[in-house]
Amino acid sequence: MADNKKLVNAITPMDQDFAQWYTDIVKKAEMIDYSSVRGCVVIRPYAYAIWENIQKIFDGMIKARGHENVAMPLFIPESLLQREKDHVEGFAPEVAWVTYGGSEKLEERLCVRPTSETLFCEHYAHIVHSWRDLPKLYNQWCSVVRWEKTTRPFLRSREFLWQEGHTIHATEEEARRETLDILDCYAELCEKYLCIPVIKGRKTDREKFAGAEETYTIEAMMHDGKALQSGTSHYFGQGFAKAFGIQFADKQNNLAYVHQTSWGISTRLIGGIIMTHGDNEGLVLPPAVAPIQAVVIPVAQHKPGVLEKAQQVAQQLQQAGLRVKLDDSEQSPGWKFSEYEMRGVPVRIELGPRDIEQGVCVLVRRDTREKAVVPLSGLVQAVQDLLADFAAAIYRKAKDNLESNIVSARTIDEMKAALEGRPRFVKAMWCGDEKCEEAIKELTGMPSRCIPFEQEKVGEVCPVCGRPATKMVIFGIAY
Amino acid sequence: MADNKKLVNAITPMDQDFAQWYTDIVKKAEMIDYSSVRGCVVIRPYAYAIWENIQKIFDGMIKARGHENVAMPLFIPESLLQREKDHVEGFAPEVAWVTYGGSEKLEERLCVRPTSETLFCEHYAHIVHSWRDLPKLYNQWCSVVRWEKTTRPFLRSREFLWQEGHTIHATEEEARRETLDILDCYAELCEKYLCIPVIKGRKTDREKFAGAEETYTIEAMMHDGKALQSGTSHYFGQGFAKAFGIQFADKQNNLAYVHQTSWGISTRLIGGIIMTHGDNEGLVLPPAVAPIQAVVIPVAQHKPGVLEKAQQVAQQLQQAGLRVKLDDSEQSPGWKFSEYEMRGVPVRIELGPRDIEQGVCVLVRRDTREKAVVPLSGLVQAVQDLLADFAAAIYRKAKDNLESNIVSARTIDEMKAALEGRPRFVKAMWCGDEKCEEAIKELTGMPSRCIPFEQEKVGEVCPVCGRPATKMVIFGIAY
Repeated sequence: MADNKKLVNAITPMDQDFAQWYTDIVKKAEMIDYSSVRGCVVIRPYAYAIWENIQKIFDGMIKARGHENVAMPLFIPESLLQREKDHVEGFAPEVAWVTYGGSEKLEERLCVRPTSETLFCEHYAHIVHSWRDLPKLYNQWCSVVRWEKTTRPFLRSREFLWQEGHTIHATEEEARRETLDILDCYAELCEKYLCIPVIKGRKTDREKFAGAEETYTIEAMMHDGKALQSGTSHYFGQGFAKAFGIQFADKQNNLAYVHQTSWGISTRLIGGIIMTHGDNEGLVLPPAVAPIQAVVIPVAQHKPGVLEKAQQVAQQLQQAGLRVKLDDSEQSPGWKFSEYEMRGVPVRIELGPRDIEQGVCVLVRRDTREKAVVPLSGLVQAVQDLLADFAAAIYRKAKDNLESNIVSARTIDEMKAALEGRPRFVKAMWCGDEKCEEAIKELTGMPSRCIPFEQEKVGEVCPVCGRPATKMVIFGIAY
Repeated sequence: MADNKKLVNAITPMDQDFAQWYTDIVKKAEMIDYSSVRGCVVIRPYAYAIWENIQKIFDGMIKARGHENVAMPLFIPESLLQREKDHVEGFAPEVAWVTYGGSEKLEERLCVRPTSETLFCEHYAHIVHSWRDLPKLYNQWCSVVRWEKTTRPFLRSREFLWQEGHTIHATEEEARRETLDILDCYAELCEKYLCIPVIKGRKTDREKFAGAEETYTIEAMMHDGKALQSGTSHYFGQGFAKAFGIQFADKQNNLAYVHQTSWGISTRLIGGIIMTHGDNEGLVLPPAVAPIQAVVIPVAQHKPGVLEKAQQVAQQLQQAGLRVKLDDSEQSPGWKFSEYEMRGVPVRIELGPRDIEQGVCVLVRRDTREKAVVPLSGLVQAVQDLLADFAAAIYRKAKDNLESNIVSARTIDEMKAALEGRPRFVKAMWCGDEKCEEAIKELTGMPSRCIPFEQEKVGEVCPVCGRPATKMVIFGIAY
């Protein structure tokens, strides 16, 4: 039975075909189902529970910082989307248009929000009058739609779930601080909770958000050496405020425009978790967001006392605040072992008649498959310690992957050489000219990922034009 | 200052114009803002926080019952919507249609989900094969769109937030039990947490959901005697299962169709809270969902020690798990008093220098405005007791309104007479013929609300046709 199931569920090895490995996991771990609208997927309970855990963590972070949640409309009238020039240029080509309500043609077509800057701006213009009304620190959890040509579950879909924060401030300084503070929150979410190391930096003008003065980003490296832009935070200056007339009377009673930010993370992070931690057996989930942190699997469960003890153990762990599942189904233990490995459950607890006799159980961790026999009396602490160690270990492993696949290059040839065999991140100097950035993309296939906050001097001159260069940029192939 | 503000924020008395009273509250308590798409509103932080509290309570209830959350796509292809005949007839006239993706015309137009039966069915057909896969107890929190002609914030809008549960079961009995169990959860949510008494019953065929075999409902009475359908739960039998081919191999290995339910509550409940508990000063919020359960207002806050003590008091209450706000802004205490009355905060805590000297503070409850001087040493308990008493009191008041405005009638004339002066609920016998139900609506203006579970015999015959009648039905004008 176990072997049979294993065969059915076989996951393509990642060395053989990384894209197929990814697709196998999202399907076989029951994370998504395809719908009849191309590029729109069903997020199934197991993946949605991960998203709920991410939401809980991040929502807590921003509420502690004074942010409030709201719900903006789903639809943006075409004229409203057009109000900020750069913004509409960036988004209009990829929005879905509603043209009929029932059998009636609409007077003005409405786009399904691809992002909600324009809606927040319209609202802010209504409600902000005085410096007393500032700042407004709003956020919403919702789905947005971008009519992408090529799609992949979690990484790029026509509809995706996200949070979008939109804040307005009386001063530039405060808005800039907000932009960076949120980037720190994103980095903390990724590093501490998702165990994904990230590089913080600023996007070049070519790569920044449509309508932003500055876009900051956290970039993560996947198993295959490609980059995943995992969260972005934008400083808008007063561009939107002027386009939408968001003014306030300051303390001297002079009218001034607000300074604005927006920032977002999405279900794409679930794709990041898969491609950072997963292996050839399936998912490996960070304990902080794993829907099941430990699974209890009774061995010889029909023997007297086994199931009762397993229930006790599960309950005890649940009472300690852990997310624990007892699988007492009719499937064989072997089947269950591979099933929960595939689903990335961090810890498996095996419990059979002999264990019970000796007052112990067997803990098996998902990442290394190491086994440990632990006394039932100290189980809660042992599982908690193991989860903490597990989180640290998968973070370290991901950090090792990042560090050993990031190389410095001084010339275009060195940049190309760095990509031999597999994608990597390449650090190179840059003169600041967008033409050179484009040339690098054309010659190496790599767009810039970011200008990292932690700068190094990996050379003196721009590899394209040879002019003096002071900025170090990370280039890489991205999802 | 206080008087000035009061004037600005004056709410139209409800006796004068109930609809305007409602609109004044949603605007002035900063619950909604209108967007430039008619019928789509911004749900502002204060109202959204109420919704988050409702979500937390109900999500906890259904998760404890084994339900799982998922995310279905926003779009339904026209052909998929058409798969179940009654369903499409009910919804097609009021959906928004997407016809373009970017600049490309879509081959098939997509509707923005008005409800997601068809999407869940398509997914269930993919994933259900054996009795081992059943039941599936799925739910999603999302927004849906119905292109209504006339709209009112929370009560009827073109987009609204809701949860929609969709379950499938191996047996009719289990599905029918689920339908009714969920109705009980809805009633518990309304009565215990929102302090809104409801009448549980079954909808007549004329009023049931498009595609359902049975629709169950909870009906609440608003201040003005009109009904608010506050939650519905549908039993579908095998209609959708047959239209979508949702089959499973049962324990005898015979193919069978699943039995299905769906059920929903929405942000309409926020409208119900306003119209059940609000008064001429503004909102009155049930403590279980009030964003702020108690507000601490320092009096003479510039005197030494006042603000410090107020902070201590607020903190102490927060640590006891209460949602407490300290308003230490520059506004006058009088302004603050009326502001938080308007916002419906259940308890106000006044604290001035003399109170502090005497080790007391003043508690003022929102519903009756009764004041009590309580020692600071026992404040946490006093506030908790007051909130419990407050919840019981506003429930009783609403129940009194319901009971004193529900009348029995034996004839059409008696039914009309019951409505003199104001809307009421009218109990009348009914023969079961849809024609008589329609005649009653035509003659009295009242559609049927439900066939209540708690039946009474208010007469012998149908008031329209005079034939013997065994079912007692509640009629009423509805939002």
